[in-house]
Amino acid sequence: MSNIHIAPVSQALRGALQDKIDQKTKPPGSLGKLEGIALQAGLVQNTLTPVINHPAIIVFAGDHGIAAEGQVNPFPQAVTAQMVYNFLQGGAAINVFCRQHQLQLTVVDAGVNHEFAPHPLLKDRKIGLGTQNYLHMPAMSLDQCKLAMQAGADEVKILHEQGCNTIGFGEMGIGNTSAAALLMSHFTKIPVAQCAGAGTGSNAQQLAQKRAVLQQVVAKHASPASAEQALATFGGFEIAMICGAIQQAAALQMLVVIDGFIVTAALLVAVNMQPAVKDYCIFAHCSEEQGHKAMLQHLEVTPLLQMDMRLGEGTGAALAIPLIKSAVAFLDEMASFNSAQVSNRTI
Amino acid sequence: MSNIHIAPVSQALRGALQDKIDQKTKPPGSLGKLEGIALQAGLVQNTLTPVINHPAIIVFAGDHGIAAEGQVNPFPQAVTAQMVYNFLQGGAAINVFCRQHQLQLTVVDAGVNHEFAPHPLLKDRKIGLGTQNYLHMPAMSLDQCKLAMQAGADEVKILHEQGCNTIGFGEMGIGNTSAAALLMSHFTKIPVAQCAGAGTGSNAQQLAQKRAVLQQVVAKHASPASAEQALATFGGFEIAMICGAIQQAAALQMLVVIDGFIVTAALLVAVNMQPAVKDYCIFAHCSEEQGHKAMLQHLEVTPLLQMDMRLGEGTGAALAIPLIKSAVAFLDEMASFNSAQVSNRTI
Repeated sequence: MSNIHIAPVSQALRGALQDKIDQKTKPPGSLGKLEGIALQAGLVQNTLTPVINHPAIIVFAGDHGIAAEGQVNPFPQAVTAQMVYNFLQGGAAINVFCRQHQLQLTVVDAGVNHEFAPHPLLKDRKIGLGTQNYLHMPAMSLDQCKLAMQAGADEVKILHEQGCNTIGFGEMGIGNTSAAALLMSHFTKIPVAQCAGAGTGSNAQQLAQKRAVLQQVVAKHASPASAEQALATFGGFEIAMICGAIQQAAALQMLVVIDGFIVTAALLVAVNMQPAVKDYCIFAHCSEEQGHKAMLQHLEVTPLLQMDMRLGEGTGAALAIPLIKSAVAFLDEMASFNSAQVSNRTI
Repeated sequence: MSNIHIAPVSQALRGALQDKIDQKTKPPGSLGKLEGIALQAGLVQNTLTPVINHPAIIVFAGDHGIAAEGQVNPFPQAVTAQMVYNFLQGGAAINVFCRQHQLQLTVVDAGVNHEFAPHPLLKDRKIGLGTQNYLHMPAMSLDQCKLAMQAGADEVKILHEQGCNTIGFGEMGIGNTSAAALLMSHFTKIPVAQCAGAGTGSNAQQLAQKRAVLQQVVAKHASPASAEQALATFGGFEIAMICGAIQQAAALQMLVVIDGFIVTAALLVAVNMQPAVKDYCIFAHCSEEQGHKAMLQHLEVTPLLQMDMRLGEGTGAALAIPLIKSAVAFLDEMASFNSAQVSNRTI
């Protein structure tokens, strides 16, 4: 990952793309956010005729040392592995939405605290049996962090070689809203108590405990020296893989569909490493998880959907991909005022 | 339409549906608005296994007397007919989105100011060559209004007989944001100047004129005696057809996908005639057209999408239907905690 370079998207076609959008048979601007997505897709692909090819979702699963001790999470840690089995059997929400929209789904064991037997649908990228508890020590070593980022990047390369040019990421990891809140706090400078929310459903007492624990974590690891160090200290294996995957996808000029709180935390790290990565990102939805809205504001971006969802797994990304296809489809298929002989404005 | 009766949806299965939703392998409530839609679909269809069959869009097109005089609209009236040809040729935004999502599209001439040659894709329900100018007289007679509502209802019946159980409506009619603003003002008691927005793109001066004209219209027609009278006075043929179509769809226990400003104005009339109609409605999106948000607040409903769109044609409804399918799909296909052997919360 160290030698990756992400260039800002070329602005060469911006004017021509905007003209093409404005000549479609509709009042100017009347397709709202879809017009912005069409423009962005054209810029990322550097063409007036962008296409969405073989859109895919990769779900990275990993466990968190802090969760093994039950300090931040209402669901037991075993749920991470149980949900991986659920993904493999096709019974989770992300399976349903991927089937509905013909999205290729890859499930990656980034570091679940469980030994899986080989399974044709499970990619083994396991870095370890969960991270360390960052109450006591960094979640992972820098070497593990680099390995994880590279593994995420490699999974993206595989899909890109198969023709995929649009990709979303999801995650599963009991405790990972805590890791995301710590990363958010580090990169946005917002106090961690404001970054931490109810996650999968903490009640008021659990949330107060989660916030107190995370404040201890921040106090212990005062000031990681680099973005990578922060990722290693506070992150999870699945979050590090997503951070690498996002950068690889941008480097390959793919459209990157950013899901909710955890994936956006991984993006905060990636943007710190490679600011131009943001040019390639489409923000799928605003999660109900407390910190997500502030993350999106920090990034100065607007999400496509506000569905009050907070499930993870990449479900927000999966639901947004049809809208991205709609944007590209109107740009490709709609008639222009000229071609359809429709009168434009009189004034 | 006069003998139609719309019953409120039965609440008999509410508890069982909510249990089914809560047993899915996800934190409770974490699918947000989709959970509400799944519940509503189950209630409307009175089953624990709702399905979306042959979803369809009907676009009703009609012209407006006021627009013939160019008093409220930046696009010339001829655009209504030109856009109908565009629909028939497959070049409009609604065509693109219906193709993308395999939605059956019906185009109805409700009363365009143009004589169309017979066309296999165009349903001729023409009530007249546009409405009258309500600056001078009611837009249509009560008989025309009844005819139009019945025609809309009949188009719904045809699709229902073909197996459609989920339907959205769209419209095309230069000047019809003015009719919708007048209806909105009548039914919500909000002053018409606040109800009127930029429509397809009025500039500040055009909008000021539009508002002044609409205030004259309100002053001329002080107090229509009934909802039907208000519809005849301020409406359009396409709006009256949508009003009848919505009621018929609800009477047939179909899911009714409500689009933007114009369609919601038609719904305001329908709800006044048959309050239970709202039980069957899913609100697709919040339009950028100024009055729409206040309309939705008046109805006390939350839309699925906020895409900053203001195109009409049923485009918001078309984009929302995949989300409705997602809601029904998760209810049908997701594993439960028991079936997938996933641990539920520890507390």
